[in-house]
Amino acid sequence: MKTHTEYLTFNTRKRHELINITRKLEAIVSQSKVREGFCLVSAMHITAGIWVNDEEEGLKEDLLEWLEELAPARPEYRHHQTGEDNADAHLKRTLVHHQAMLPITDGRLDLGPWEQVFYTEFDGQRKKRVVVKIIGE
Amino acid sequence: MKTHTEYLTFNTRKRHELINITRKLEAIVSQSKVREGFCLVSAMHITAGIWVNDEEEGLKEDLLEWLEELAPARPEYRHHQTGEDNADAHLKRTLVHHQAMLPITDGRLDLGPWEQVFYTEFDGQRKKRVVVKIIGE
Amino acid sequence: MKTHTEYLTFNTRKRHELINITRKLEAIVSQSKVREGFCLVSAMHITAGIWVNDEEEGLKEDLLEWLEELAPARPEYRHHQTGEDNADAHLKRTLVHHQAMLPITDGRLDLGPWEQVFYTEFDGQRKKRVVVKIIGE
Repeated sequence: MKTHTEYLTFNTRKRHELINITRKLEAIVSQSKVREGFCLVSAMHITAGIWVNDEEEGLKEDLLEWLEELAPARPEYRHHQTGEDNADAHLKRTLVHHQAMLPITDGRLDLGPWEQVFYTEFDGQRKKRVVVKIIGE
Repeated sequence: MKTHTEYLTFNTRKRHELINITRKLEAIVSQSKVREGFCLVSAMHITAGIWVNDEEEGLKEDLLEWLEELAPARPEYRHHQTGEDNADAHLKRTLVHHQAMLPITDGRLDLGPWEQVFYTEFDGQRKKRVVVKIIGE
Repeated sequence: MKTHTEYLTFNTRKRHELINITRKLEAIVSQSKVREGFCLVSAMHITAGIWVNDEEEGLKEDLLEWLEELAPARPEYRHHQTGEDNADAHLKRTLVHHQAMLPITDGRLDLGPWEQVFYTEFDGQRKKRVVVKIIGE
């Protein structure tokens, strides 16, 4: 059994951002030498998530607008009594989920024809990490 | 360490459908000869998901209605400027999540008393795949 | 390869509750002797979930209020024709997701600086279980 762990670091320019990390993940899988296994991708900061979906500009904007509808930024959250202003980002992370498990088959990410993996930032402009952990053989 | 990979194919009659795949998964686990491990079930098309919940007709209809409320089909999505008409299906996949990890204990799926695994189709009537990947011993 | 399986049992006083189980999970990881691997935490009852987020009282109340907005308790669900009254709890489980996969690195849970793991109960006051399954070496 082989294991391989790496951390990706992000510091986005905008508060909300979707970053396609599929190629970075493919490179990590390749370095791991794992032929059959699992690759966990998990946002370590609680105002960011991981989204496996389509690399299409319109849809990516649709996603961000829709998340704003379902989990709007607004002053009234109780969390903001601590001095924070990002309760909505915690809820948006909950909606997209904070992680994905990617299968590795024949030494490559075993994704569907349109599946791309995105880091989803909801409270950016500061340094944040994602853990990538691979187990297999 | 053992690994085992299979692909399930679906071509639903209706655009929206919930298909209970628990027995199929149990058969795959049995074939894999894995006694202790993990079974990943992941929808490879970005307008479908995996839902682990109750085999009860009313609740299944409730789920589909509720997803329609939270992520309605409507013409205005930016994604539709590409000619597509299924942005809502991408968002519904996001809500139910596109995958589940099932524990395998003593050679069987280690599910709760009412847990059943569903393929959730939100843009059907064409061929789509689900990857089932097992790791264990 | 090592595997280790345990079941946590909950019987909450209130119908809705968030219970921080991070320390319990750390203890299980320690007992497992796994240094590098994955720890699956999955709610076995279909009206409960697992949430990885912040140990902050205000945010935890925000989460429960927000889930009530998006998946309200109401009599009209079709599921209630069976005599049940908890369809909203099934939908709330869907929103927070019912499981999380925690990486284990150097013998410890490899969580972000603020990540805490919660059992999220949406139909409590009775005995329920969570499966914790570890694979690694």
